[in-house]
Amino acid sequence: MPGIEKLPIEETLEDSPQTRSLLGVFEEDTAAISNYCSQLYQAMQRIYDAQNELSAATHLTSRLLKEYDKQRFPLGGDDEVMSSTLQQFAKVIDELSSCHAVLSTQLADAMMFPISQFKERDLKEILTLKEVFQISSDDHDVAINRYSRLSKRRDNDKARAEAVEDVYTARKKQHQTMMHYFCSLNTLQYKKKTALLEPLLGYMQAQISFFKLGSENLTQQWEDFLGTIGASVQK
Amino acid sequence: MPGIEKLPIEETLEDSPQTRSLLGVFEEDTAAISNYCSQLYQAMQRIYDAQNELSAATHLTSRLLKEYDKQRFPLGGDDEVMSSTLQQFAKVIDELSSCHAVLSTQLADAMMFPISQFKERDLKEILTLKEVFQISSDDHDVAINRYSRLSKRRDNDKARAEAVEDVYTARKKQHQTMMHYFCSLNTLQYKKKTALLEPLLGYMQAQISFFKLGSENLTQQWEDFLGTIGASVQK
Repeated sequence: MPGIEKLPIEETLEDSPQTRSLLGVFEEDTAAISNYCSQLYQAMQRIYDAQNELSAATHLTSRLLKEYDKQRFPLGGDDEVMSSTLQQFAKVIDELSSCHAVLSTQLADAMMFPISQFKERDLKEILTLKEVFQISSDDHDVAINRYSRLSKRRDNDKARAEAVEDVYTARKKQHQTMMHYFCSLNTLQYKKKTALLEPLLGYMQAQISFFKLGSENLTQQWEDFLGTIGASVQK
Repeated sequence: MPGIEKLPIEETLEDSPQTRSLLGVFEEDTAAISNYCSQLYQAMQRIYDAQNELSAATHLTSRLLKEYDKQRFPLGGDDEVMSSTLQQFAKVIDELSSCHAVLSTQLADAMMFPISQFKERDLKEILTLKEVFQISSDDHDVAINRYSRLSKRRDNDKARAEAVEDVYTARKKQHQTMMHYFCSLNTLQYKKKTALLEPLLGYMQAQISFFKLGSENLTQQWEDFLGTIGASVQK
């Protein structure tokens, strides 16, 4: 993919102000992606929850119609026509609720799963690495400070050797965490488009399947049924 | 409509134990209808609320995608392809949200309106009439009691005349409220089937329109669009 900018891993050892400035730009970009993705995640979660609720409410309605026969109506309780009509309604509404359930499952797999993964795994990993990098930078600063203070007194070879050792260890750790952090930020630049498009594609495909399922399997059958009912109700 | 049982209005003046017993059967039947209808009403309200929420959440998602261009992404923010792809997604999802909004409106008019009317107007009217009838029956009992006590003492023509007048007024009122109450209970027997079937028909017709709208206007257009996107994402 051309045109994708990268943080230069090879500059992490030198850790120049230019590199830090570039890191700032990447961090800002990552924060913007993270913020936008969270909003999209929340909107998709609302769609998913509403779809589940719709599916459950449709199923409940169908179940209530099935239970009509079990109600105790002292008058006209054994009305065969009414009873069989409501059973047919129960059946078609149940079929619709199955279509809704299929849609819910597809939304879970093809929309919520990829966007959750991106949010909970990729974006969280970067936050963690940012913290780890911050800690190792602070440790490095502390080690440098201690070394600077020691070197003025020039009185203790052992302490100075230890301080040098500390600086070396801290710088090594900082270098490693910085490389790791840079890698993750670069990877995010590759992933960000897919992370937005994949759940949207999943959403659209689920909706298309739903409409196909509905119009192919249900609509004609329902219209015939409604024609019959409509006529008998008007009588 | 044959086979529908009726409370005999002409028996309200005599108000015999047989009439009271038949009234009891009608009241039990009305309570059962009322209970069943309330359950169905709640299930339909859940469907309606979920459909509204789905419509709102879909609209929000579309709006978020439209706002992608306004986000400040320091890196690759001016990516034309990504931007136009998300605008296309926003457009089709917005069309879907319009279909959802149409469905919501149809459910409001053809499902929620008739079942609410039946619940809030017809069933509530019967409850009110039941109370009014109960009060006038109690008043009648009080008048009868007072008259019985008076007639034993045989001392006051004026008080007796008043008591007779009270009994007459109370009986007249009770008779009127009873006729009114019987009428309403009879009407309910005629209305009860329509009251259940009308919102179900409305629901089904709204769903059929939704699937038609979706499959005719959206599906083909979406599939072409998704084919293009899918190919460019895989690249």
